[in-house]
Amino acid sequence: MRISELSERTGVSTASIKYYTREGLLPVGERTGYNSTAYGEAHVARLRLIRALIDTGGLTVAAAGRVIAAIDDPGIELDHVFGIAQQSVPREITPPSAASVEKVHAVMRERGWATVDKNPGIPLAASVLDDLAVTRTDLSAVLSRYAEAIDMIAEADLDAVAASGDRDQMAEAVVVGIVLGDVLLAGLRRIAQESHTHRRYRGGVVPGQTHETNETEEPT
Amino acid sequence: MRISELSERTGVSTASIKYYTREGLLPVGERTGYNSTAYGEAHVARLRLIRALIDTGGLTVAAAGRVIAAIDDPGIELDHVFGIAQQSVPREITPPSAASVEKVHAVMRERGWATVDKNPGIPLAASVLDDLAVTRTDLSAVLSRYAEAIDMIAEADLDAVAASGDRDQMAEAVVVGIVLGDVLLAGLRRIAQESHTHRRYRGGVVPGQTHETNETEEPT
Repeated sequence: MRISELSERTGVSTASIKYYTREGLLPVGERTGYNSTAYGEAHVARLRLIRALIDTGGLTVAAAGRVIAAIDDPGIELDHVFGIAQQSVPREITPPSAASVEKVHAVMRERGWATVDKNPGIPLAASVLDDLAVTRTDLSAVLSRYAEAIDMIAEADLDAVAASGDRDQMAEAVVVGIVLGDVLLAGLRRIAQESHTHRRYRGGVVPGQTHETNETEEPT
Repeated sequence: MRISELSERTGVSTASIKYYTREGLLPVGERTGYNSTAYGEAHVARLRLIRALIDTGGLTVAAAGRVIAAIDDPGIELDHVFGIAQQSVPREITPPSAASVEKVHAVMRERGWATVDKNPGIPLAASVLDDLAVTRTDLSAVLSRYAEAIDMIAEADLDAVAASGDRDQMAEAVVVGIVLGDVLLAGLRRIAQESHTHRRYRGGVVPGQTHETNETEEPT
């Protein structure tokens, strides 16, 4: 297909398509004449991946380029792809205090989690604990329970990767799971928080509820 | 204390302090003379909360202003504070497909979650499912497991709110928990993912590991 059709199929402007090609995120199309290039289904799929990473995942174009390069390079081992994807999510944080880093390490010991020292989750979690320390909210009591739930989530993440096929598909699953998984979890958490609030403080009555809900069984 | 000391204590510039005061995020200090204003510990705590919401939580100044107004207004019920805080986290999403919204509703039925229709988590989670549908990754198999883990997290969230004291402290805990909790969970998830990867693919060996880890007990 021509670039105009590729643009129509994906909703990405031709200018952006050319930009992604120049930046190496999108493979060049097949040259079919002096001034025309043919694109295929692989280009459609790749463009949608790029937009998901940038629009939903919040990655910069440069960060999306790095993770896509990692997907495309069969020489990069899967756990290295993991590391690259983990580093790609933009987070500007103030360096955490040693006390909060130690709290994170304590939770890691409790759960038997072992990582390299530069795992970006450690300073990220610790900087939140610093922030919490200056507010009047004590989330340290929930830290262990968060970690227990996150253990289940990480196990599910790895099962999804393992189920996704060959190395290239696994690499794509790793990137997509890390970048979009946070957003999916944030969405589910908003739903669960509201539901638990109604259950706890209003006996399960949802204000302004108009559609039918199935609340016959209380989940554990 | 004077504004210069408040600035020093909190690391927030005097220009920003004046800006937050004008925008209503920070209460005005006590007028002590023609050209001097006195600030107290409440101002220190409030400034740290503002910076945590904006810097770590990624809120805009306007969104931080809305949640702080909700904390400060004793007439706003706690579940309304929840709703305001949930809406405050910036997420630009493309409207999700009906099919993905239905998938989210199916998970909600499975877990007995009931919410108002406009809960922002529903379109957020559904838009991620749309993104996943266009990549080669199938996360639908993990959706139920994510939801089960999120149920534990929401329960912990509400326990933390309930434990935090009077209405004002509970309102602050709600806001902080929603805004910063996502970031804390994202950090823990990065740690757990790396640890599970090593455990599954490298027999627990962490590459380049130099510090001692406690891996004597395998958590379930």
